[in-house]
Amino acid sequence: MRDASSGSSGPVMITSLHNPRVIAAVRLRERRSRDETGLTIVDGARELVRAVGAGTTVEEAFVCEALLRSDDARAALAALEQGRVRVWQVTPAVLDKIAFGERAEGVVAIVRIPDTSLGRLHLPPHPLVGVIEAVEKPGNLGAILRSADGAGLDALIAAEPRTDLFNPNVIRASLGTVFTARLAAASTTETLAWLRDRGLRIVAARVDAPQLASETDLGGPLAIALGSEVEGLSPVWSAPDVVPVRLPMLGVADSLNVAAAAAVLFYEARRQRGLPVR
Amino acid sequence: MRDASSGSSGPVMITSLHNPRVIAAVRLRERRSRDETGLTIVDGARELVRAVGAGTTVEEAFVCEALLRSDDARAALAALEQGRVRVWQVTPAVLDKIAFGERAEGVVAIVRIPDTSLGRLHLPPHPLVGVIEAVEKPGNLGAILRSADGAGLDALIAAEPRTDLFNPNVIRASLGTVFTARLAAASTTETLAWLRDRGLRIVAARVDAPQLASETDLGGPLAIALGSEVEGLSPVWSAPDVVPVRLPMLGVADSLNVAAAAAVLFYEARRQRGLPVR
Repeated sequence: MRDASSGSSGPVMITSLHNPRVIAAVRLRERRSRDETGLTIVDGARELVRAVGAGTTVEEAFVCEALLRSDDARAALAALEQGRVRVWQVTPAVLDKIAFGERAEGVVAIVRIPDTSLGRLHLPPHPLVGVIEAVEKPGNLGAILRSADGAGLDALIAAEPRTDLFNPNVIRASLGTVFTARLAAASTTETLAWLRDRGLRIVAARVDAPQLASETDLGGPLAIALGSEVEGLSPVWSAPDVVPVRLPMLGVADSLNVAAAAAVLFYEARRQRGLPVR
Repeated sequence: MRDASSGSSGPVMITSLHNPRVIAAVRLRERRSRDETGLTIVDGARELVRAVGAGTTVEEAFVCEALLRSDDARAALAALEQGRVRVWQVTPAVLDKIAFGERAEGVVAIVRIPDTSLGRLHLPPHPLVGVIEAVEKPGNLGAILRSADGAGLDALIAAEPRTDLFNPNVIRASLGTVFTARLAAASTTETLAWLRDRGLRIVAARVDAPQLASETDLGGPLAIALGSEVEGLSPVWSAPDVVPVRLPMLGVADSLNVAAAAAVLFYEARRQRGLPVR
């Protein structure tokens, strides 16, 4: 095995924590670097398998054979090799540095951030769409992506997102479903216009809504909108064509965690609509 | 205004970051200190109002008048004063240190951790109980507490908890509902025995369950059990008298975030049972 500086083909080992590729990878933890490069970092084998499976462009990967333990990790590596991705062998110390040591599964990849423009989103007939406005916490965003995946939503739109959707913490909290979701980011104005143009009914989660979600018809072409952790939905979601709905709040608090509320609403819509015919 | 060292009654200002009370308060961020003292720290005005409203013993509080902005914060202070709690006036720098500067609302309190022994938990007829086993992340625990509060659960039992329930991050993520919940911690064995003794049917969330939760009767005296983020429920929850249920998983992932799953199941039970008569 030769050192990375040899420049020739074949297996090459990166041993230095100061290697420029390592430093560039670590820098992708910062939003500025992701915005500048259009790249993000994927650690977690399942996350990586899902990114590759969804056709995400992988720029390069870092693998530490000594840490590759799980079947998921071997599957991730196999997927990379099949895609002819440049894979750098690295030492455990280098991998720990890139993966932040938190959940090092032996493989980390740098991928191109997918295009999330609203114009690219295509809906099937009778779609079920989720909209989350100004959600801030990567953990909440990741959990919402998992719920959208599980409940079989046809699209998820992040209106005025306060965190970048491919933040490594979102990738992780979403278990990689951020790559497989039909996902868009747009302004609230664009989102509302887009939903109306397509004839979707819009229901909006509001704590003061007169109607319970479970007593509201959630069938047909539908969008379900939820607001941020602190502020809820912005005033434009009170338009006359938007149906406010609420969940029972039987205790002392007046709201749920936004990811919990999203899960309940997405699954209530799914329950009413029945399971899709596949 | 006199210095805290004067020792006499009346308004006293703590100005030093090295004041022993300040140091003791900051130390309550660590589990060891909470376990040793039986105390925890509450920052956040709404959280404090809920703790006081639930009859939690407040040992002392720290207030910075200059930072007291919200109505919630004034209400918290009024509740403390009514309870004849020793309130120390502090400088903004001292309050920031105690409150970790994250959401300083001008008031932080040291409270006695409530007794969470299972023996103290009393159930109404036809109870709805949540059980979460080995849940680890304070954010998930807090969100689950909010969902249990909202869905009107009669009790929540943390089986084999991996985080202490009155961790300041749980208090915060729960918006203080950790104080108002009928909450117990116990081993899984004790929990199962306790539920069976009381004649509760037990349903357990399992990804491989044959039956959907929405097609399962969730009425009557019932416990709904969910497992940890990584491992799910332990094998004892596969006993013949436990009914496994699942949610539809229509995407690529095989599970939801545990707090999302708890919210969907608690609210599905609530939907089936109807709103309680008050």
